[in-house]
Amino acid sequence: MKTEPAFDLARDLFDKLATQSFDGVGITRDTYGPGEQAAHDLVRAEAQRIGLEVTTDAALNLYAALPGQDRTAPKVLVGSHLDSVPRGGNFDGAAGVLSGLAVLAGWRKAGFVPSADTVLVAIRAEESAWFPVSYIGSKAAFGRLDAAALQVCRRDTGRSLANHLLEFGGHPEVIKSGVAALDPARIARFVEVHIEQGPVLMGSEQAVGLVSSIRGSFRYRSATISGAYAHSGATPRELRRDAALAAARLITEMDDIWSRRAEEGHDLVITFGRLSTDPDEADFSKVAGRVDLSIDVRSAHATTLNLIETDLQDIADRVAKKGGVTIDLGTKTASTPAQMDPALIEAIRAESKSLGIPVRSMPCGAGHDASVFAHEGVPTAMLFIRNRNGSHNPREEMEFDDFMEATRVLERGLALPVTNRKDPR
Amino acid sequence: MKTEPAFDLARDLFDKLATQSFDGVGITRDTYGPGEQAAHDLVRAEAQRIGLEVTTDAALNLYAALPGQDRTAPKVLVGSHLDSVPRGGNFDGAAGVLSGLAVLAGWRKAGFVPSADTVLVAIRAEESAWFPVSYIGSKAAFGRLDAAALQVCRRDTGRSLANHLLEFGGHPEVIKSGVAALDPARIARFVEVHIEQGPVLMGSEQAVGLVSSIRGSFRYRSATISGAYAHSGATPRELRRDAALAAARLITEMDDIWSRRAEEGHDLVITFGRLSTDPDEADFSKVAGRVDLSIDVRSAHATTLNLIETDLQDIADRVAKKGGVTIDLGTKTASTPAQMDPALIEAIRAESKSLGIPVRSMPCGAGHDASVFAHEGVPTAMLFIRNRNGSHNPREEMEFDDFMEATRVLERGLALPVTNRKDPR
Repeated sequence: MKTEPAFDLARDLFDKLATQSFDGVGITRDTYGPGEQAAHDLVRAEAQRIGLEVTTDAALNLYAALPGQDRTAPKVLVGSHLDSVPRGGNFDGAAGVLSGLAVLAGWRKAGFVPSADTVLVAIRAEESAWFPVSYIGSKAAFGRLDAAALQVCRRDTGRSLANHLLEFGGHPEVIKSGVAALDPARIARFVEVHIEQGPVLMGSEQAVGLVSSIRGSFRYRSATISGAYAHSGATPRELRRDAALAAARLITEMDDIWSRRAEEGHDLVITFGRLSTDPDEADFSKVAGRVDLSIDVRSAHATTLNLIETDLQDIADRVAKKGGVTIDLGTKTASTPAQMDPALIEAIRAESKSLGIPVRSMPCGAGHDASVFAHEGVPTAMLFIRNRNGSHNPREEMEFDDFMEATRVLERGLALPVTNRKDPR
Repeated sequence: MKTEPAFDLARDLFDKLATQSFDGVGITRDTYGPGEQAAHDLVRAEAQRIGLEVTTDAALNLYAALPGQDRTAPKVLVGSHLDSVPRGGNFDGAAGVLSGLAVLAGWRKAGFVPSADTVLVAIRAEESAWFPVSYIGSKAAFGRLDAAALQVCRRDTGRSLANHLLEFGGHPEVIKSGVAALDPARIARFVEVHIEQGPVLMGSEQAVGLVSSIRGSFRYRSATISGAYAHSGATPRELRRDAALAAARLITEMDDIWSRRAEEGHDLVITFGRLSTDPDEADFSKVAGRVDLSIDVRSAHATTLNLIETDLQDIADRVAKKGGVTIDLGTKTASTPAQMDPALIEAIRAESKSLGIPVRSMPCGAGHDASVFAHEGVPTAMLFIRNRNGSHNPREEMEFDDFMEATRVLERGLALPVTNRKDPR
């Protein structure tokens, strides 16, 4: 039978999300805060209105199921997250949820019943800008959120994750016990649609990307360089312990390493996104005694991450020794690179070809919930939508036509036959 | 006749200043604020108590005169400033005022009448940490404060210098008119005692330094590097416009230039004391779109300052071009290197030798009010007191014995014969 995704519904929901999440500068849907909750309320109401079976789990992930012909068959999952970074854009995360909702609403309207239950997942807490923990929602769904994460505090509120969960009706004690809402063996596949966060598709003829792998990372979000404050005019070069200079040397040497490792063929990005002298102590007429900074390293390959970790330690040691400062990298957080499912990728590519929609094969530079599903052994695919100006900023810009192309490809990917899988591990 | 500086008085006033200026961390005597005013009130009360002639000028500089035998002769001036940087130490500035006061109190007690009026000056607003203008008090005393400076706002209060002056009874309209309280032709000499702000005397056997010249400077207190925020994981190297990396390259290249110019024999210090991404926009997962920073360059030689200015422009242009960012250095402030008076230096050296107190000849790396007097053509000398841990921080540490040695040398310097000078310009 002929089906058509509910694009008008998606367009309307994008508008509603933008209006309710505007913060005066960009879009803010704060993780386990009013912003994210309002987005979930909106999607829940629409899912219920079109007759999907709506549930939530202990972490308040939202599931909206369209029953399939065989309700005992492994389910097909589709979705993404609804939270955003502070002052971000409207499409990062939400595009994947609304793409899935458009497909299910279209199927519902057409009376199409898929072979297995097809479930839209609106995932919680993907953006680690709020809590310094990655993939809280999807990890919790699989019963794999480290219990310690529940006591981590949100950067702006200073309140714990557990506290935020309780505020909106979540169950931190269930998460702590490791009870899973999702069983990888009972999931036929997971497909996540997401705007591309880099500029690769903007420079190509294709509106849709098909991800081959998702980069892993390691981060030091709160590194500190400690030197000694001293009079800028009266302290000779050789007696300085300048934290600002040491930070500058660390950053430039890591950039030089990036250049060298890239030439050697390594997939890699290195970013120092936050960098600051102490606003209370620093002055133009003082040698800087302290600098705080963040370090973010990502690669599609675990071996590269290990190599750069060693490079970083070597450079930090050398810079500290030469500059008479101490460098405390602080707590490390990390994620493992994830490979998308080759058979699923090939099947989606074949479907997109028959639709006449070209897709571009590409690695994914940012982390996504899809990597959690992949690590759990769920056959996983990601579709990228072409997007201008990157994401995590108010100027992200997805053409609705491109969203429509990706959603048509998604629909075919969700409709692929479901076969009983072997043990996923 | 035998005189002895009033060391007990000085010790008592140091204690009182420390108590009344303690901010919980260090010493804060805010320029044209309650902190500086309280210090002036303390010194004024003591000067009046011991019978000095106390006056103030339009900028609220405090003059406490001990009348000399010939009241028409050019006056001998001694003093320093009483303000401090935020969270500074107790001795930077105040040591010079209390050293002069100790000498005059000792002379008064002994009934010693100097040949000419000898005037303690407690200068206002030397520290440019509050208002981004150098030597407000001493420039105003000579009628040389740029009228525009009166509208400059204090960094923390956001209120103008004129507004702050009025609060404590000053006369901005007089300053604006350029009327001078001091006539260089009527000043026989100016001697400023100050703690050394660097570590040179700490590494020597001498407790007292005799300054040969004062470094000049140029500063960009609010430079800005503008790039583009972008996703840290998904933005390839070649498409980044990373303000943090550009800042790091600017700082390291300027440090390399410093090293090279020093090898060529240039007297030079270069400092980036403030450095910060935007706390509202920056995130570990974003390429930094903006960095604010300060640049402070000092040298004993104007030619060196000109050379480094050119180096800075070249490097900024190159870094901006290479990094795809714009670098706006912002407003420049500058001061000219000042030479101390050779004849006065030699006379003081001879006196110190006869006292048996060795003095070390040295350049001065920091700016001081003494440079304003020197630029006005007043024969000027500076004495440094050995000091641990630098200044502009709470850990500055001057031994009282060292203060006593410097004050004994100062006393001889003030007692030198006064001869009628030619036109000073």
